[in-house]
Amino acid sequence: MKKLINSPENLVVEAMEGMEAAHGDLIKAHYNPNFIVRADAPAKGKVAILSGGGSGHEPLHGGFVGAGMLDGACPGAVFTSPTPDQMYEAGKAIHGGKGVLLIIKNYTGDVMNFELAADLLKADGIEVESVVIDDDVAVKDSTWTAGRRGVGATVLAEKICGGAAAAGLSLKEVADICRKVNAEGRSMGVALTSCTVPHVGKPTFDLPEDEIEMGIGIHGEPGRTRMKLQPADKITEMLMDPIITDIPYKSGDEVLLFVNGMGGTPLLELYVIYRKAAAIAKAHGLKVSRNLVGSYITSLEMAGTSITMLKLDDTLRKFWDAPVKTPALRWGV
Amino acid sequence: MKKLINSPENLVVEAMEGMEAAHGDLIKAHYNPNFIVRADAPAKGKVAILSGGGSGHEPLHGGFVGAGMLDGACPGAVFTSPTPDQMYEAGKAIHGGKGVLLIIKNYTGDVMNFELAADLLKADGIEVESVVIDDDVAVKDSTWTAGRRGVGATVLAEKICGGAAAAGLSLKEVADICRKVNAEGRSMGVALTSCTVPHVGKPTFDLPEDEIEMGIGIHGEPGRTRMKLQPADKITEMLMDPIITDIPYKSGDEVLLFVNGMGGTPLLELYVIYRKAAAIAKAHGLKVSRNLVGSYITSLEMAGTSITMLKLDDTLRKFWDAPVKTPALRWGV
Repeated sequence: MKKLINSPENLVVEAMEGMEAAHGDLIKAHYNPNFIVRADAPAKGKVAILSGGGSGHEPLHGGFVGAGMLDGACPGAVFTSPTPDQMYEAGKAIHGGKGVLLIIKNYTGDVMNFELAADLLKADGIEVESVVIDDDVAVKDSTWTAGRRGVGATVLAEKICGGAAAAGLSLKEVADICRKVNAEGRSMGVALTSCTVPHVGKPTFDLPEDEIEMGIGIHGEPGRTRMKLQPADKITEMLMDPIITDIPYKSGDEVLLFVNGMGGTPLLELYVIYRKAAAIAKAHGLKVSRNLVGSYITSLEMAGTSITMLKLDDTLRKFWDAPVKTPALRWGV
Repeated sequence: MKKLINSPENLVVEAMEGMEAAHGDLIKAHYNPNFIVRADAPAKGKVAILSGGGSGHEPLHGGFVGAGMLDGACPGAVFTSPTPDQMYEAGKAIHGGKGVLLIIKNYTGDVMNFELAADLLKADGIEVESVVIDDDVAVKDSTWTAGRRGVGATVLAEKICGGAAAAGLSLKEVADICRKVNAEGRSMGVALTSCTVPHVGKPTFDLPEDEIEMGIGIHGEPGRTRMKLQPADKITEMLMDPIITDIPYKSGDEVLLFVNGMGGTPLLELYVIYRKAAAIAKAHGLKVSRNLVGSYITSLEMAGTSITMLKLDDTLRKFWDAPVKTPALRWGV
């Protein structure tokens, strides 16, 4: 295992320290329990938004803490859910009187721990709404998930809900917008290589030199099928077809198209994927009015990509466009 | 070789098509010869800035085309200099009457071809200034370079010169600022793995599973030494020490600290490197007032990192902070 780390045990805390050293104007790190909050926490006159999950998916979630997006993020150990006490303490630290929205990726550990944290926050008299993101069309039920997994739509939900909260919407309204993003968003991914969890020290799975895993999960969970490596255009078709047919997206729909890198994929390749994905969307009569291309929800150094599509309406587009200032996403300010 | 491509021959053009599809509001692609320009080219009432080089280092350079940074970028084949006709046509397309600054990384092919292009542009009556970036302290002379290689300071020069040009400075003034960035900036990198050039089909070099290459070049050129894998803090020391002692940076200096990923390195690890690099800078009495952390000048899927430090003054800081709106860097707008 070759990694730029000091030890698997200290990796997450040292990365948090590095984040805080680099972005102290935007975020503040708390340790034991570990969480990251906006530098100006608690949220003033607005709904507070909290997310979190296993580390190894950076910039998700800590890189999305800041004005116009998340108020707090709880990093677990790599590919391991954070604990309820992290979420509870983070929730208290960011709550500014208008309630807390929990955005939860659908993994059994995350869901269970966030539910416990929600109960603890409610017991303190804090209003809480929880939304579980389950946008991955690849498989129903998975290694660590009952139902569909939560993947790329999480990034979009965090941005759009952040915009809605900044605009002063109520907890119920922001939560409903989050549910809408989840209802109108779909994703699927592919892996060309595995990744190595630091405290395990060897690749999560074996993938022969000429094979790919279609429908991979962000922790290396098995997808739909293994197959020989295909040209990028063919791979893009195999990702786009299940996405488009799932809701289904209909001719005339306005969409946001998000091509995500898994961590070890060059940007050059992501643009090759985007080129074909946009052409497929267009051929289906979809109007791609917004997009995002880059590595935003990763699986350590895994090579691969995922595509997320989100149907937009005036509300979702407005809050996507709203100003954001976080370590990993920034525009309008 | 496992890559998300259709064919090595079409990779660069297809990635350009993807970039244009995603960022048509910011950039426009021209083909045969290949170059990318700002959507609102030619430059109006300002100096035009052109850069370029082999592909495989994305987002450098095409991802930095846009308001407040580059006016044009010429992508060569992967790790291969663009040709003089690309640079000449791009220079003509962006020139708006106030001259063209060429920002050139110090590789023999790039320097020769940009010189030819400069002659062609001058023959057309266009005023041209050229600045060669050679900030890599690792080695003197390299596989494709006489003198030091041009690496991370290129990103900073493109941003700062873009800010200066947008502020209306003259060609001579913008070029002098570029020379200052090069004079006050130093870099060094390390590789944990090689990368595979698509049209070659096998890794550029072999690196045993427990070894790293200190002082690596961005095309996999040999560095100073091979050694066993070390803890991240030790690696960071080995990168920072030659940088700090080269100019040397002195106690009290204000600096920008840039921790760059080579393409296949998780952000989590880059923050571990940043943490230690910032601590080392502080221990030397340096004031880190600005920073950049992410994969901005890459070597395809190579795992590794480079550190760049730039001494700031009021002018460089002001133009670093100036608004920028490109596919890969954006703030203030």
